[in-house]
Order: sequence, then structure tokens, then C-alpha cells
Amino acid sequence: MPLQSVKYAPGKLEILDQLLLPVQSKYLAVKGVEDGWKAINKMQVRGAPAIAIVGCLSLAVEIFPETYDSKKTLRQEIEGKLNYLVSARPTAVNMKIAADELIALANDLTKDDSINVDQMKERFLAATEAMLQKDIDDNRAIGANGASIILKNLKREGPVRILTHCNTGSLATAGYGTALGVVRKLHELKKLEHVYCTETRPYNQGARLTAYELVHDQLPATLVLDSMVAALLRAKNIAAVVVGADRVAANGDTANKIGTYQIAVIARHHDVPFFVAAPLTSIDLQIPSGDHIIIEERPDREMTHVGEHRIAAPGINCWNPAFDVTPASLISGIITERGVFSPQKLKSEITAFLEA
Amino acid sequence: MPLQSVKYAPGKLEILDQLLLPVQSKYLAVKGVEDGWKAINKMQVRGAPAIAIVGCLSLAVEIFPETYDSKKTLRQEIEGKLNYLVSARPTAVNMKIAADELIALANDLTKDDSINVDQMKERFLAATEAMLQKDIDDNRAIGANGASIILKNLKREGPVRILTHCNTGSLATAGYGTALGVVRKLHELKKLEHVYCTETRPYNQGARLTAYELVHDQLPATLVLDSMVAALLRAKNIAAVVVGADRVAANGDTANKIGTYQIAVIARHHDVPFFVAAPLTSIDLQIPSGDHIIIEERPDREMTHVGEHRIAAPGINCWNPAFDVTPASLISGIITERGVFSPQKLKSEITAFLEA
Repeated sequence: MPLQSVKYAPGKLEILDQLLLPVQSKYLAVKGVEDGWKAINKMQVRGAPAIAIVGCLSLAVEIFPETYDSKKTLRQEIEGKLNYLVSARPTAVNMKIAADELIALANDLTKDDSINVDQMKERFLAATEAMLQKDIDDNRAIGANGASIILKNLKREGPVRILTHCNTGSLATAGYGTALGVVRKLHELKKLEHVYCTETRPYNQGARLTAYELVHDQLPATLVLDSMVAALLRAKNIAAVVVGADRVAANGDTANKIGTYQIAVIARHHDVPFFVAAPLTSIDLQIPSGDHIIIEERPDREMTHVGEHRIAAPGINCWNPAFDVTPASLISGIITERGVFSPQKLKSEITAFLEA
Repeated sequence: MPLQSVKYAPGKLEILDQLLLPVQSKYLAVKGVEDGWKAINKMQVRGAPAIAIVGCLSLAVEIFPETYDSKKTLRQEIEGKLNYLVSARPTAVNMKIAADELIALANDLTKDDSINVDQMKERFLAATEAMLQKDIDDNRAIGANGASIILKNLKREGPVRILTHCNTGSLATAGYGTALGVVRKLHELKKLEHVYCTETRPYNQGARLTAYELVHDQLPATLVLDSMVAALLRAKNIAAVVVGADRVAANGDTANKIGTYQIAVIARHHDVPFFVAAPLTSIDLQIPSGDHIIIEERPDREMTHVGEHRIAAPGINCWNPAFDVTPASLISGIITERGVFSPQKLKSEITAFLEA
């Protein structure tokens, strides 16, 4: 069974404490909004979808045993606590979007005279729980679509070797994962010969988190360094590269973890298909191209130290862009929960799809 | 003045203790062969040329104050102590080659009836000291040849931005460096706008050693991660990449630190010239192509830990090749102390050159 980073049942929420990974695997009980705020703020949970879901579920857990004297009281409780949760990591936009949606729902339910306060609470809890299920369902659909396109385009039959970058698995989502969901699906189909994951400096999400998930799920897996991608593609007969996305522009240009662009260049040189796996919500048709995506530059210390241990010479300057942009021309396909889109035709295909 | 990793005067040798870098800069007195053996064995000195030179100079320092009753005694002393020094790191082939050369010299001097024991000692010390000077002279010639070819092929005039990989500077040689010698020469010519060095996982020679040298020499320099090369070449208008070589085959294929091959692929994609800088001794015309170079695979622990700190998930497999092979077709030129050779014509050009 795939690693569960979020365990939820009505009134009960536990999350895998990511600060202790990969050395310790310990679930943390989140008993309400206060615990949820702390877990997000201290980065015990990370990854934009995971933060939003844990935040909203922490509210669901808090509301679950309570009774409210009026719909207005419940609405105030919901609005105040969601805004408080957004403040735990203001840059995590998914939590803000989720909060706005749930506040709008609470307003609608308050105005709806056909339901009482208990029914309002039930509907609200159901909507929160549906977010968790939708994320997992979408990831499973991404996994199935990705496995299918990879297997369809094989130069030769048989189980495949895949390379992935960074962490896009259960630890970054509500469960299963996007690019790692594709890998999991290939394994379920008994079509995965081996998966290679990159270390992903400077935060080592590949070595710490993806490797942890792969060991947990007992997938045939090997860690490589970011500098080994070309040597790997030359030596190991890799069938495809699959990575996630932070943002996909209308022309198919894709912003993702630093290092993604060069993997795409190397894949093209070795004639290996390069896929991006992401939910439709990551595709922003308002951004015309990658040139309009601003790349965050992060502090030097992420590069110069590992924990308290200095690894770089004192006094050296650092360049530390968090992301890079892979041009659409290097991308073989964008795998979503609703199908695989050609990056060059992304805008027309998604627009047609949304209008259909 | 360029960083001096080896400080030598007759009877006195000091080396920069590389185990303490980059946090502490401390010179270690090497008072004789016993100290030399320990410094090599404990890796206080590293890099094939540097090991050979420190080993031989430690013998020179030991012999310097002594008087010998016969040429035979001196010859036995030289042979025994050089063989002992080779045992400090048996895989460091340069020390073995240097030892064999110096033992042959001692044999010749012993047989030469025109000199006495004091003259033999003087000639032997001079030969040892000449090795140090030759390495530095060769590196300065490599630097001049490299700067010249880079500046000649510029698409536009003006100071240049250069990328280098791993450590090929004063800390890997007797002084000045090979690829880093090219960078130093560009700086001396006031033609270096900026140099970027890669971290070079897993041993971080770029972040620890190259960055240390660049800070010491006050060159305009920035550290990047191994995953940032393509983003760098796209964003920062890099004029050329210069790297070192462990071994160059007769067809120009070049074995060097892992990650070199993918930098060459990325450089080609961005139309940036890619140069290899190495002394003629690194070119092995006996090896027909890179396919004949065996790549050492190193222990997992180099990848999974930084010092005592575990950074990768327990249980994950690792692939840890120490080197990779860059095909000649991706190399713009091989910069040596005797000129820049076209990799495709390497064998004919070097053969013609040696016969001239």
C-alpha cells in the first residue's frame, strides 16, 4: 500500500512528521486548528496540496465534536479559523484558495434557509473531506494516464526504467503523488523494472523524501546525484523521465524544481521522452509563457550548509534559484487527471476541453 | 598571488592541510618521509600531481641535512623510502611513476663514476625540485594556452564568464592549476568578468576547494549547484566551460569527475564551447576510446551522508560512479602545456608533435 502521509477519519487526523524524515517515521496527532497551524508553520507538513488539505482537515477535526447554537456562529468560527490557518505560511497559495472556497461555501450554507445548523455542519465537513478524496483521485488518474502514455510509446516492450526528480509523491500531496503516482501505477501494472530518483539539491527532497517513499513502498529504486543524469541515461536504458510542475504556462513552458530544465535538455540529447505530471490546477492559462514566471532566489545558506555543518568555503557568493523553466519544446507531454496534453497545443486543447 | 598549497625551500616543506578546509587554513610542516606518508595517507594532500610532488619533496627534505658515506647507501635510502611513500596511497599512480623515475635516476647516478656522493645528492635534490617547478610551469602554460583560445573564439569582445567543475586548482596540483589555471590567467589578463564553479557532489570539491581558492585569490566568483548548469547557461551568457581530465583517450574521449559529461551535453545545447585542460601526461594514446576506460564505482556512504549526518533515506540503493566519459564530439578543444589540440585529431596531432 502506498505511503500515507495523511491519515484521516471523521474527528481524527494524523500526519507523518516530515521534519523527522528520513531517519524517523512518526505520525503526529493533529487535534484541531492550533495543531494544524503549528504543523504547517514548522513544516512538519510541506508541499502545496498537502498543506491545504492538512489545514482544512484540522478545522474539520475541531468542528466535528462541537455543537453550535446558530449557523452564524458556525460561519464565524469557520471564517476566523481558516484565515488563521492561512497565516501559518502566507506564501502557500493553495491553503488560501481552499480557505476562500470553504468560506464562500459557509456563506452560501448560512443563507440557505432549507438547512439547519447541524445540516450545515455536516455539509461543511463533507466538503472538506471531499478535498482529500479529490486530490487522491486526481493523482490516481494522473498515474493511470501517465503509465498508459509511457507504455504506449515504448521503443521496445517490457518493464521500463524511469527517472524522476524532486518529491512529487505522498509526501507532497494528499497521497499517491503526481509524477511519483505515474511510477506507482507502473509498479501496480508490473511494468516498472526500476525507478531512479535524483538527490535534488539543495534541500535533497529526492534523497530524503522520494527515496523514503520508494523504500516504504518496496519499489525497485536507486538514488543518483543531480550530476549523474546524463551518465545514467547513457548507461541504463531509461524509457522515460517524469517530473512534477509548480506552474505550467499557456504555451506549455513549465516551472519546476531547479534542475528540471537540464534534465529535459539531457533527455532530448539521449532521445528519451520527458513528461510533466501535474493536476489541471497547476496549468495557468493566464500566463502566456515561461518568460512571465518570476523565479524565486533563495538564501545562500541552503547551499553552503547541511544542517549546522558548513560544506562551502566561507565568503563564496551563491546563486540559488529555487526553480527553473523548461521550454515546451523539450516536453513530450503534460500528464493531467483528464488526459495527456501536447504542450504546444495546451491552450487550445484545454480550452476545448473546458468548453466541451 | 595564487593560493600556494605546497610551500617548499631546500630543507623545508609545508602543505596546506586539506582536511581542515574550507573552514580552517592551516599549513602543516612535513619534516621528512614519515610526515609525507601520513599526509598522503590521511588525505591532507590530494590530487594525483600534488600527491606525487609532496611525496618526493618529503624525501628531499629528509635527505637535505644528511651526509652519506657512499653512493650505494644513498641509493638504498632513496629506493626504500620512495617505495614506502608509494604504499601510502597505492592507487595514486603519479606517485608510483615519479618514484620509478627517481629510482632510475639514482641508479644512473650511482653508476656514473664522474660524480661523488655529495654531487649525487645535489643532482638528486635538483631533480626532485625540478618536478615541482615543471608542474607549475606546465600549468601556467596550460593557463596561457586556454585563455588564448577562449578569447580568440569569442562571439563578442570583452571580459568573459566561465564555468568550471570540480577542483583543478592549486589544491589538486603543485600550484596554479589546469582548468583553474585558465581561469587564473584570464583574470591576470583582466579578461575574466566572472567564474562560476559547481558544487561537485558527492565530495563537494567545488564548494569546498575551488570556492576556497577563488575566495583566496579574490576572483569574481559564484558557486552553483550541479543541477543549475542549464539554467546558468541560459541566464548568464557564459562564454566557455573549462574542466580538467583524469584521462584522455587517443580518440579524444575524456574521463573526468562525474557530472562532466552532462555539462558537455548542456554546453552543446546552448552553443557554449566546452574545453578540457590537462597536461600531456593525462593523454593516454594506448587507450583507443572512452569505452576502454573502466569507471570506478564508489561506496554508497559518500552519497547518503555528509560527515556523520545522514541525508538520504535508510535502505535506498545508490549508484555512485566516480567519473564519467565525455565523448570527443562534445569537446571543443583539449588544452595542454604544448598547445590546444582538436579532440578528433588528437592522436595524429600528438604523434606528429612528439616526432617533430
